[in-house]
Amino acid sequence: MLLSGGVDSSTCLALAARDFRCHALSVRYGQRNARELSSARRVSEALGAVEHRVLDLPLDWIPGSALLGPEVAVPRSVDGQTPAPAPPDGVPVTYVPARNSIFLALGAAWAEALDTPHLYIGVNRVDYSGYPDCRPAFIEAMERALRLGTRRGDLLIHAPLMELSKAAIIRRGVDLGLDYGLTWSCYDPVDNDRACGLCDSCLHRKRGFAEAGIPDPTRYA
Amino acid sequence: MLLSGGVDSSTCLALAARDFRCHALSVRYGQRNARELSSARRVSEALGAVEHRVLDLPLDWIPGSALLGPEVAVPRSVDGQTPAPAPPDGVPVTYVPARNSIFLALGAAWAEALDTPHLYIGVNRVDYSGYPDCRPAFIEAMERALRLGTRRGDLLIHAPLMELSKAAIIRRGVDLGLDYGLTWSCYDPVDNDRACGLCDSCLHRKRGFAEAGIPDPTRYA
Repeated sequence: MLLSGGVDSSTCLALAARDFRCHALSVRYGQRNARELSSARRVSEALGAVEHRVLDLPLDWIPGSALLGPEVAVPRSVDGQTPAPAPPDGVPVTYVPARNSIFLALGAAWAEALDTPHLYIGVNRVDYSGYPDCRPAFIEAMERALRLGTRRGDLLIHAPLMELSKAAIIRRGVDLGLDYGLTWSCYDPVDNDRACGLCDSCLHRKRGFAEAGIPDPTRYA
Repeated sequence: MLLSGGVDSSTCLALAARDFRCHALSVRYGQRNARELSSARRVSEALGAVEHRVLDLPLDWIPGSALLGPEVAVPRSVDGQTPAPAPPDGVPVTYVPARNSIFLALGAAWAEALDTPHLYIGVNRVDYSGYPDCRPAFIEAMERALRLGTRRGDLLIHAPLMELSKAAIIRRGVDLGLDYGLTWSCYDPVDNDRACGLCDSCLHRKRGFAEAGIPDPTRYA
């Protein structure tokens, strides 16, 4: 399963771990928020994943994404609640080109090597940042393509959080015993311990905890 | 465009270079035949690619492929003409799980960053090794998935060699001035200069040149 160390993928691992012995894959792709990788490690240990692999695949030679370098700033909310305006096409500058396509293809490769059809991804189309590679039509098309492009031919991409609100996801995770203090959402950390509280990802997280009526364990700057 | 440095992808670059300023992508994925990467470099220079990028993405933690480590031997023809027998499902042990899916996703990311819809891949379904990720249905499905999973949404995967025999591909490349002495096909090189002459890839290459009536510049062991 694909694990970034954020709320969604960590909850997805908690769900998958009920039914499977899980192998978790994270990618060090040059993300500004590489802090999430140590969270992924802790989450995978806490949830008893049998293996956590961090793949080095620097993508920071790809220009234009706010997550891939200091050239483009991560948009910040002015009041800590209203998201910063997105570009006209609705895709924010934190978009990383084809990221989930790359990750799903890598996950499919590993699933095939592990001789399983099951691949989990924590994408969600309700409380998300507007990335095209989080939508159901994309996941379905990718499943079809990866079936055709692998030997087994029976890949199943599970996206169990697709239709849940962030609050519902958090409630689910708490029910499953997930400690969200281990997870990391912020795109633009102030330091290794403190989230900015103003990026899109912090806003989704804060609102999710507020709506769920569950205290947010995050340290915000 | 995706460039391995073999006959097909090199010819594909020669074709694409007639119409486009080409950016070529190769991947150092832990292949036994990493020798192909220096061929890719020379081919991209000879054909005037504006850029050749070699991405480090070790996949040799994925077990089971003869191309990804010494554990599984590359099958060899006994007589230098008849291919070694393939497994019952027709997919040889040199198959690398989801390789073209990973490469196409990476190519789509770069294409999007370069702000172009065009992505070339030199796959071919006539004289090929039986890999599932070389078939037209896979390429079509992947194009659709990558359109849905990227911001532009208009990716075009060009696979101009899909229906050509190896001999036809070689004739085409020679017409375009490609020096096949720069290319590399062998899966299991004897040393840095000599191909084994017995692996599937050498057999396809040898037969292609023979059928095209063009001398094969390869040094075979």
